[in-house]
Amino acid sequence: MWELTEDCLESISIGAGILGTGGGGNPYLGWLRSRQILRKYGPVTVKTPEELDENDLVVSVAGVGAPTVGVEKIRGVDCYKALRALESYTGKNATALISAEIGGSNSLEPVIAAGLAGLPVVDADGMGRAFPELQMTTFFIYGVPCVPAVLCDEKGNTVIFTEAVSPIWLERIGRAITVQMGCVSVSADCMMSADEVRRTAIPHTLSLARSLGDAVREARRSNSDPVQAILGACPGKVLFQGKIVDVERRTTAGFARGKVTIQAPEAEGGESLVIDFQNENLIARSNGSILCTVPDLICIVDTERGEPITTELLRYGFRVTVLVFPAPELLKTPQALEVVGPKAFGYDCEYIPTVLN
Amino acid sequence: MWELTEDCLESISIGAGILGTGGGGNPYLGWLRSRQILRKYGPVTVKTPEELDENDLVVSVAGVGAPTVGVEKIRGVDCYKALRALESYTGKNATALISAEIGGSNSLEPVIAAGLAGLPVVDADGMGRAFPELQMTTFFIYGVPCVPAVLCDEKGNTVIFTEAVSPIWLERIGRAITVQMGCVSVSADCMMSADEVRRTAIPHTLSLARSLGDAVREARRSNSDPVQAILGACPGKVLFQGKIVDVERRTTAGFARGKVTIQAPEAEGGESLVIDFQNENLIARSNGSILCTVPDLICIVDTERGEPITTELLRYGFRVTVLVFPAPELLKTPQALEVVGPKAFGYDCEYIPTVLN
Repeated sequence: MWELTEDCLESISIGAGILGTGGGGNPYLGWLRSRQILRKYGPVTVKTPEELDENDLVVSVAGVGAPTVGVEKIRGVDCYKALRALESYTGKNATALISAEIGGSNSLEPVIAAGLAGLPVVDADGMGRAFPELQMTTFFIYGVPCVPAVLCDEKGNTVIFTEAVSPIWLERIGRAITVQMGCVSVSADCMMSADEVRRTAIPHTLSLARSLGDAVREARRSNSDPVQAILGACPGKVLFQGKIVDVERRTTAGFARGKVTIQAPEAEGGESLVIDFQNENLIARSNGSILCTVPDLICIVDTERGEPITTELLRYGFRVTVLVFPAPELLKTPQALEVVGPKAFGYDCEYIPTVLN
Repeated sequence: MWELTEDCLESISIGAGILGTGGGGNPYLGWLRSRQILRKYGPVTVKTPEELDENDLVVSVAGVGAPTVGVEKIRGVDCYKALRALESYTGKNATALISAEIGGSNSLEPVIAAGLAGLPVVDADGMGRAFPELQMTTFFIYGVPCVPAVLCDEKGNTVIFTEAVSPIWLERIGRAITVQMGCVSVSADCMMSADEVRRTAIPHTLSLARSLGDAVREARRSNSDPVQAILGACPGKVLFQGKIVDVERRTTAGFARGKVTIQAPEAEGGESLVIDFQNENLIARSNGSILCTVPDLICIVDTERGEPITTELLRYGFRVTVLVFPAPELLKTPQALEVVGPKAFGYDCEYIPTVLN
């Protein structure tokens, strides 16, 4: 158990930006919004999954939509509203909140809702990173029922799924709703017992985000290499370094899709790396060969400052380092790879786990 | 109070096909489906709005979607399912059902659900015809709350709107959901008291559909003119007679949109009439001048048999008569014309009421 203070927020927003692999919502906006809440309501308590007890009822909350829209549109609604609608529908009150995805501002959505509701948050999440689609949480992959689920917008529309054929149908219909809501909505779903959280969630990812951010901030303070600091806080490796020379981006069907091309300096051979993204970075290729795919984490950070660069902010000229982190074990089972492996994103290749030296 | 028997169904399906102004769902399929229910569960009681009492709770049900899809896709789900979901959400049981729109098979959707639920239906509806969009009922126009509202599909997805900014937002998000559900869904909403029904519904339209159908069937039996029989049962006039020479049709954004061109015989001058439709017939023009618009009813019937031809069945070569019926008064108030007048459909013209000779 620890207290999430204003100082933690800055670290979490950096660390969650890295774990977000390009998506999960703009970390800076998440930081500003959660800071406002903490200043008003005080720190939020963080419980590990182990610290939950048998009376706990944990609800998963998240922002849904395209980061390209999320970064421009005032959100105007918090997951707190979706939480209250879910509680009202089920007649049960949540005792703690959890992130659907630790990546990006979605690491802080539960903190905001928890601040408003006076609840603790759980140090865990449903992705260990960010993924673009609703069915891609370990909660759903490992059998937590996908209904009831709530989606709200800032205009005053609230929709509750009371029956869904499968999590993929929740995604399909929920995405269409989100597009109508203006490409951004907030969700609450997966009312879970402590046992369900311990069985299905990826543990200690809020702490991991915080440690990553602490490491980056410390490196900045001491003028040491932030990339090495990141790798010290979370096992991974440098895949590529270079300059962004091209970005193709389109916001379509509710997602930010596109690809970014990064070129190494001429002095180092001038090779290119191309990364496809759908909100998040999906696959990295060079010279026609695949270097890394989902579910492993492909993260683009600013080489000088270690600042994660989310897909909506990719721009020509940035000097970047591409890092790769092996996915958590819960994302690498055959069951999980069906939902979050490269084939689930339409790539005709098998997942080859990243090997660290 | 009267009993809706199997014999009534044939008449209602013809009459509702006429009142549907091209839409409301394929009447023949509605007839087959409701006949099956009546054969299994017996006749359904029909109550006039005046016969409802203060304990009554009336729910509006309808099929939603594009008729071009509805005529091809096995529905596989009845409004009964949406009704039960609405009852379960509100904790209140309906005592009678009412049509959102009397047009097409939507005249019989409440009969099917009522047969399954053992409830009566109300001799009234929310449009007095058919309209393509959810906000276009007199229930909503005259202030019945638009939530809670339920949409279900045949696959097993159920969505409940618990908050909507306005009926137009219900339509916007509900249409997107329906498209994902496969362009056809079933709805239940507008839990109304007897007073609300009497204040907002268009009364006696189920009887009107039945009388229209009775008249057509009688004309067929006696080899008399079915068109004159229709005009005898409901005040209206013949706008045009001729042959369908062109149909443009596309199923887009969840609607069947297009236009049909009808040409008079050469001997009678060979003039053309063009009717635009969005599920239903919206506006009739000839030589660049507008002859008739929504909310007045523009109905296309087979000249020989008086059989209504819905927009999904329009085809080159049909010999047709275009009939016009003045809209019910509840559709012609300034309040209603904002929602169902020509401007609501994007036409830059005022509504000019049809004058009968």
